[in-house]
Amino acid sequence: MAADIRCDVALIHYPVVNRNDEIIGSAVTNLDLHDIARACRTFDVGRYWVVTPYVRQQELAAQIIGHWTEGYGGSVNPDRADALSLTRICSGLDDVIDSMSVRDGRRPIVVATSAVSRVKGITYGGLQKKMVEGAPVLLLFGTAWGLAPEIMARVDATLPSITGTGDFNHLSVRSAASITLDRLLGDRENN
Amino acid sequence: MAADIRCDVALIHYPVVNRNDEIIGSAVTNLDLHDIARACRTFDVGRYWVVTPYVRQQELAAQIIGHWTEGYGGSVNPDRADALSLTRICSGLDDVIDSMSVRDGRRPIVVATSAVSRVKGITYGGLQKKMVEGAPVLLLFGTAWGLAPEIMARVDATLPSITGTGDFNHLSVRSAASITLDRLLGDRENN
Repeated sequence: MAADIRCDVALIHYPVVNRNDEIIGSAVTNLDLHDIARACRTFDVGRYWVVTPYVRQQELAAQIIGHWTEGYGGSVNPDRADALSLTRICSGLDDVIDSMSVRDGRRPIVVATSAVSRVKGITYGGLQKKMVEGAPVLLLFGTAWGLAPEIMARVDATLPSITGTGDFNHLSVRSAASITLDRLLGDRENN
Repeated sequence: MAADIRCDVALIHYPVVNRNDEIIGSAVTNLDLHDIARACRTFDVGRYWVVTPYVRQQELAAQIIGHWTEGYGGSVNPDRADALSLTRICSGLDDVIDSMSVRDGRRPIVVATSAVSRVKGITYGGLQKKMVEGAPVLLLFGTAWGLAPEIMARVDATLPSITGTGDFNHLSVRSAASITLDRLLGDRENN
């Protein structure tokens, strides 16, 4: 990512929905931390925010990240330390937006990726253009069955769902985050 | 993926290398099965081959897949059954190539994705062109620290590593497979 592009990623554990469209909080998982941190590091994302209001879950996330950034894991696998050092734990979306606003001197464009919603739709190319023009961007990803309506109501824009030619769109959040970052920030020059 | 495109994916658990470049066999993991099957289903891949010569590992993989395709998992989550039904377990690369050759009436182009090698390099666009022209393709992904030299020596072509503008290329195999499939088979029409 060019030095003047500012893009953060937030993985939301609450409020999200379950398969019955009920509001739930999901558990932090080890592989969501690792896979998405590695994708963020690959595509030069600024910060990877792990969002959960549950203190015990925050502690668990901190323990995992600490093992890989300051503990034994990082000493045997420095690349993993490098990736996980981008991670920050926080309680809610407002905390992320506030931190980014202070850092970047302006509020980020908050963008959801959604398998279903096309509300306030923006294309990948359209968002890339805004990033190149200097707008800081916060990309939101939902765990479980996706972001709750109260989060979707607050976003500034929604990217199209990721599909092939069919209509199956049940990618893992790890895959969806990886593909979204590649579409927005991947190096296509030699491809 | 268009009906006339034939692309399979194989996840190799042996022979792969560890961080010291020694040949090892890796363990089948639950999330490699799920995440990559879901990405394969999204992008209309023909078959997702899980390659391990270890009988106990084959049994474990079959048990997991069975739970989601025939057992309780599939009954509560039909989308997951749909994705995992693409999966086939086999002992080695030769088995995959033989099965595909019989099915498609010709040997597939065997393509590795590699974070390092550029031997027999092909671009994503170049491979897409061959697929559209009707060539069946087998995409290989390596677990652990990647495909062993004896596998790399046998491939017909190698795709470039996936990077941002930097040189960090330590994506998880789940992320790498997802991004590669999206680059080759993703629908960009409305993006």
